[in-house]
Amino acid sequence: METTSTLKITKRDNSKIADVDFNNLAFGSVFTDHMFSVEYVNGQWQQPEIVPYGPISMDPSAKVFHYGQAVFEGMKAFKDDQGDIFLFRPEDNWERINTSSARLAMPELPKEVFMEGLMELLKLDEAWIKAGDGNSLYIRPFHIATQPGVSASPSDRYKFMIILAPAQSYYSGEVSVVFAEKYSRAASGGVGYAKAAGNYAAQFYPTNLAKEEGYQQVIWTDANTHEYLEEAGTMNVFFRVGDKLLTAPTNDTILNGITRKSIIQLAEAAGITVEVRPVAVKEIVEAAQAGELKEIFGVGTAAVVVPFKSFAYKGEDHKLNAPENSYGVQFKKDLNDIQYNRTEDKYGWRVAVK
Amino acid sequence: METTSTLKITKRDNSKIADVDFNNLAFGSVFTDHMFSVEYVNGQWQQPEIVPYGPISMDPSAKVFHYGQAVFEGMKAFKDDQGDIFLFRPEDNWERINTSSARLAMPELPKEVFMEGLMELLKLDEAWIKAGDGNSLYIRPFHIATQPGVSASPSDRYKFMIILAPAQSYYSGEVSVVFAEKYSRAASGGVGYAKAAGNYAAQFYPTNLAKEEGYQQVIWTDANTHEYLEEAGTMNVFFRVGDKLLTAPTNDTILNGITRKSIIQLAEAAGITVEVRPVAVKEIVEAAQAGELKEIFGVGTAAVVVPFKSFAYKGEDHKLNAPENSYGVQFKKDLNDIQYNRTEDKYGWRVAVK
Repeated sequence: METTSTLKITKRDNSKIADVDFNNLAFGSVFTDHMFSVEYVNGQWQQPEIVPYGPISMDPSAKVFHYGQAVFEGMKAFKDDQGDIFLFRPEDNWERINTSSARLAMPELPKEVFMEGLMELLKLDEAWIKAGDGNSLYIRPFHIATQPGVSASPSDRYKFMIILAPAQSYYSGEVSVVFAEKYSRAASGGVGYAKAAGNYAAQFYPTNLAKEEGYQQVIWTDANTHEYLEEAGTMNVFFRVGDKLLTAPTNDTILNGITRKSIIQLAEAAGITVEVRPVAVKEIVEAAQAGELKEIFGVGTAAVVVPFKSFAYKGEDHKLNAPENSYGVQFKKDLNDIQYNRTEDKYGWRVAVK
Repeated sequence: METTSTLKITKRDNSKIADVDFNNLAFGSVFTDHMFSVEYVNGQWQQPEIVPYGPISMDPSAKVFHYGQAVFEGMKAFKDDQGDIFLFRPEDNWERINTSSARLAMPELPKEVFMEGLMELLKLDEAWIKAGDGNSLYIRPFHIATQPGVSASPSDRYKFMIILAPAQSYYSGEVSVVFAEKYSRAASGGVGYAKAAGNYAAQFYPTNLAKEEGYQQVIWTDANTHEYLEEAGTMNVFFRVGDKLLTAPTNDTILNGITRKSIIQLAEAAGITVEVRPVAVKEIVEAAQAGELKEIFGVGTAAVVVPFKSFAYKGEDHKLNAPENSYGVQFKKDLNDIQYNRTEDKYGWRVAVK
């Protein structure tokens, strides 16, 4: 056992890494040797710990099971050809999990606890991060309510954890999307802007219905009118009309995506006009009919950029033919170059793990 | 160990009941000796079990923690003066947890598994049900996603459990409510009609804000316009204007409450006009100003009926003076009389546990 300032580290005796086939990783299904954990009790965060990855013991009445106080983040670590490890804008994830926590009446975590836990965990399990384009370590910080008791009120105990899953290049296949006409992801005045666990479960059933009709994803529209395009549930969405990029403003129903805001900055630096404003279903359908709609792509940490090959609305499919100078392809390359330390980082987004 | 048909029962060696002060029970904080549990694996519900109440082991990547696939029910068991035990419309809870599960892309549980588990668990822990008005055993069935893995898709493993908490008469104190003007509970096209865990966490923060201003509960309004009154989050709501009762229709944002529908039936049988239709904030404010608003009360399993002493809207408090012939008080008595086996059960709502 080692102890750094306040962090207690208990190492696993033998790594299980030899059992892992790094060429056949289903996303988010294999976890590394260790995990980070810190409990909130009596109004205070307790001793943070890194321990061997393994099951946790929960009272069956723990509030996370009954009232859904649970928020999370998604991040990645990358290894360059020299074996150095980098994160991408990690403080933004720390800020956002606290924004999410506040909306769910959960305590915020101090930055130093988050960052130290993350850095030490990555150093300990650094062998699990493989170099090479597409390889990364997916990082899942999450925060759950652990107080036993079924009264419908905020928990007084919490557990914040970080777990790590090695990931390969995310190939989603050809993705056809459908614009939501009936079901909704988020209410205005609700928790759609938070990475709240319940936002995801709510999408599974309507997404299954879309899959039965041959679509891989739903692009959610506003719950009030279904006239404005919001996000894809696990990704923000960009629309390229002519040479302009359109994306919805973040508000209380749309996640403030880190990939989204990075791409807006990259696009503007490249001289591309970006309109951050409500995007009407009608204008996208009309642009498609006029041949002006060049690209729709989803953006997020897991996949970086996912180009959509078609969208459906009111039973009609609209095909998209990716142009030669695809913005989506370019942004993915630009971001990956920064993430893998292959290019200058003008924006200060890359953070070395050491 | 005993086995009934398919249910396996493992008893606790010594009951912990002697340690419990039944005159000082905080709601939902003390649990009985046993719990019911059944797992869903490989597309099938497995051997149901009753085991001693205690912690469960969960992988930290279990989907309930990350994506919020979790639904629950609330029910009660009552004991009459002869020591016989009764449930109130239990099949409706079974139906509703399956409705909730379907919306969250979770498997439905067969009725016989639910009912047998419930009945056997109640018989085993029947000493925890105290006779006498106000005493009951609160029953919490719940259903959670247990598959390890952080890909955002429905779980392929689940756990369905029932836990039991002895309860005393629920005295909520004097309850002032505020009509929601900014925050929302549910999106149309969303999961508001399901008893989904995430619906509750989403209310905690705005409810805390209301509490800071001196209100105990929020009555949620529609997320689109905030012009129509929906529900109180853990209770449906009735408004008495003159001698008429108004309550919102159940739809995709409002829970189909069992107490709610029972009260509608009781009211109609008593010759009271019940209007089940959208209830505008405006008409309630105007009725209050005209002296026509006699009562507002919340209804639900935990408290049966909670009269509200005032409501606030746009910063103005409107006091309610409960009339002598309070509908709320009468319905609570009528329901309790059926629940405690003190009166004829015309509707077939009471189910004996034996």
